Amino acid sequence: MAANLRQDILGMLAVEYQELNGSYIETLYNPSAIDFLRAVRIGRPVIIKGTLFFNTGFRTSAHDNWTDEYLIGKMEEIPISVAVTPDGNADAIVLNSDGLRYFVEPHVERIGMRELLRILSRKTPDQDHNESAPTEVYYLQSQNGNLYALQDAESHCEFDPLRTDVPKDVSWATEALGISPDAVNIWIGDERSVTSIHSDPYENIYTVVRGEKRFTLFPPTEGWLLRERMYPHAKYTRQSSDSPLVLTPSPPSIPPVRWSSVIDPTDPQNLPPEARPLHITVQAGDTLYLPVGWWHHVQQKAVTIALNWWYDMEARGMEWVWLNFLRGESEEVPDGNIDD
Amino acid sequence: MAANLRQDILGMLAVEYQELNGSYIETLYNPSAIDFLRAVRIGRPVIIKGTLFFNTGFRTSAHDNWTDEYLIGKMEEIPISVAVTPDGNADAIVLNSDGLRYFVEPHVERIGMRELLRILSRKTPDQDHNESAPTEVYYLQSQNGNLYALQDAESHCEFDPLRTDVPKDVSWATEALGISPDAVNIWIGDERSVTSIHSDPYENIYTVVRGEKRFTLFPPTEGWLLRERMYPHAKYTRQSSDSPLVLTPSPPSIPPVRWSSVIDPTDPQNLPPEARPLHITVQAGDTLYLPVGWWHHVQQKAVTIALNWWYDMEARGMEWVWLNFLRGESEEVPDGNIDD
Repeated sequence: MAANLRQDILGMLAVEYQELNGSYIETLYNPSAIDFLRAVRIGRPVIIKGTLFFNTGFRTSAHDNWTDEYLIGKMEEIPISVAVTPDGNADAIVLNSDGLRYFVEPHVERIGMRELLRILSRKTPDQDHNESAPTEVYYLQSQNGNLYALQDAESHCEFDPLRTDVPKDVSWATEALGISPDAVNIWIGDERSVTSIHSDPYENIYTVVRGEKRFTLFPPTEGWLLRERMYPHAKYTRQSSDSPLVLTPSPPSIPPVRWSSVIDPTDPQNLPPEARPLHITVQAGDTLYLPVGWWHHVQQKAVTIALNWWYDMEARGMEWVWLNFLRGESEEVPDGNIDD
Repeated sequence: MAANLRQDILGMLAVEYQELNGSYIETLYNPSAIDFLRAVRIGRPVIIKGTLFFNTGFRTSAHDNWTDEYLIGKMEEIPISVAVTPDGNADAIVLNSDGLRYFVEPHVERIGMRELLRILSRKTPDQDHNESAPTEVYYLQSQNGNLYALQDAESHCEFDPLRTDVPKDVSWATEALGISPDAVNIWIGDERSVTSIHSDPYENIYTVVRGEKRFTLFPPTEGWLLRERMYPHAKYTRQSSDSPLVLTPSPPSIPPVRWSSVIDPTDPQNLPPEARPLHITVQAGDTLYLPVGWWHHVQQKAVTIALNWWYDMEARGMEWVWLNFLRGESEEVPDGNIDD
């Protein structure tokens, strides 16, 4: 299929979508299932808030309880899986010393909640001895249903002791969609950790418990502007627990990964002129509905704790067909290390 | 834009949609607003039924009351606007004696309910005198909000006396969509009247009061197979009340009409091999949800009375962008009288 005509079509769709929808982000207060399902039908991000005296917008006991002391007391010495990277980019494109760009997975360390919170607060054990703060970046982002996974909802997980504060589902979302979430996750990071731009095949309910999340969003119609390419796979590894992280290309048997080539979409200079990113800041206590297929880049302010519920997308109807078309067929995706 | 590449894309989308959705038509029993909104989100036709003992599926007093005698008694001698055509094709493409194809609007006559029902039943006033049944086809299809029009819901209309039997809205649809219908219409025709294939920018709730409606449906992804073309406009007229109908081309100041070139999509031979029509028969008492953008051709069995509620489509999000793309830009639509 001739690439430039396909791009003409994608460009026309992106502009029509922008003209029709503008940059307005709706806020829903205490949504009912119907309110939420209407938002899902429209498929645009929505901020969900409660009100002071009738806060069913979305508030869990996590929002009320989760101080450092509470979390440490609940989790005790249970080891939890935390992503570690030299610069905060987990699951991201990194230029290696061999001159190639790789999709790099983070190193995963299992540490206790006390240590994680201490690292994020830069309060290292040796701070009093004038050692510098750790330069590596720690981000709890295991996102494997680390609180609940639908396929095995009763099984144990790393965050068992925190389940009492987190409902298995979001009542109005479950009532609207008629399904339970596929996965419920906890996320803990700070201003140094970044989630690189990508999209998910899920309807996403994302609530901030502490801190602040900054989303840079693009509708599915602008995915083609984010220049997905095929990148060889790599991981950060280290030889022993106190040696530095090394970018380690994976063996050729590990398939390449399709990923956006735009490292920092928050800087307009990195984007083509057709792009119209939406910038949404989600404060503690607020919740973002992020529709399936929306591209998102996420940053935090200070230590931020968040929860998310992933509901499977609707496979019937046109949505999957459109998202697939807008993303393009993988055979068309060029090699990421060729300058194009 | 190169026409054949655009067709390649449309062909791929049509096949993916077919593969994902198959030909299954869901039936909803006594839907709640949530049930209906989920169907709208998916955007596929749904049959709506009540159950024997708890029939809120959708039943109006029209379903119970509308015998010929009742309708004649209520309407008395009020003149109502009825479409008259030589062969039952109102708003359809007709080959004229000048060798050109036209989009032809029906002649409109104002007659009483008693006369309309008599014509549809072939009981002409002169039947006893062995006159032949009328050859012209009468179809009450004024579809201008002939029962209620949102923009002027309190104003009088031709069917004022029947309003007591027809609710202004469908409660679960209004609750789901959060808007009132733009128009509510009554339709009365028989097996000779046909609605040619077209699509509307409305969510449509269509209930059959008496008789049977036969829908031939195509998803929006198959619109390009229906070969929309630009046709000059014409009307059926007659010189005096007892002269025959004549196809009368409109003056050049009346713009041409974009319409499908497929006259009878119920015959597979008239369709390209990629087409996968859905055939749905809606019985008296049953209701069809016909989503925005779906192409429909409609026939009746015997005398059929139906009601429909048109709800405006959702303008936000992607739906309008997609429907517009699938239908193609009007500049690309060739002249209908050139063989292509």
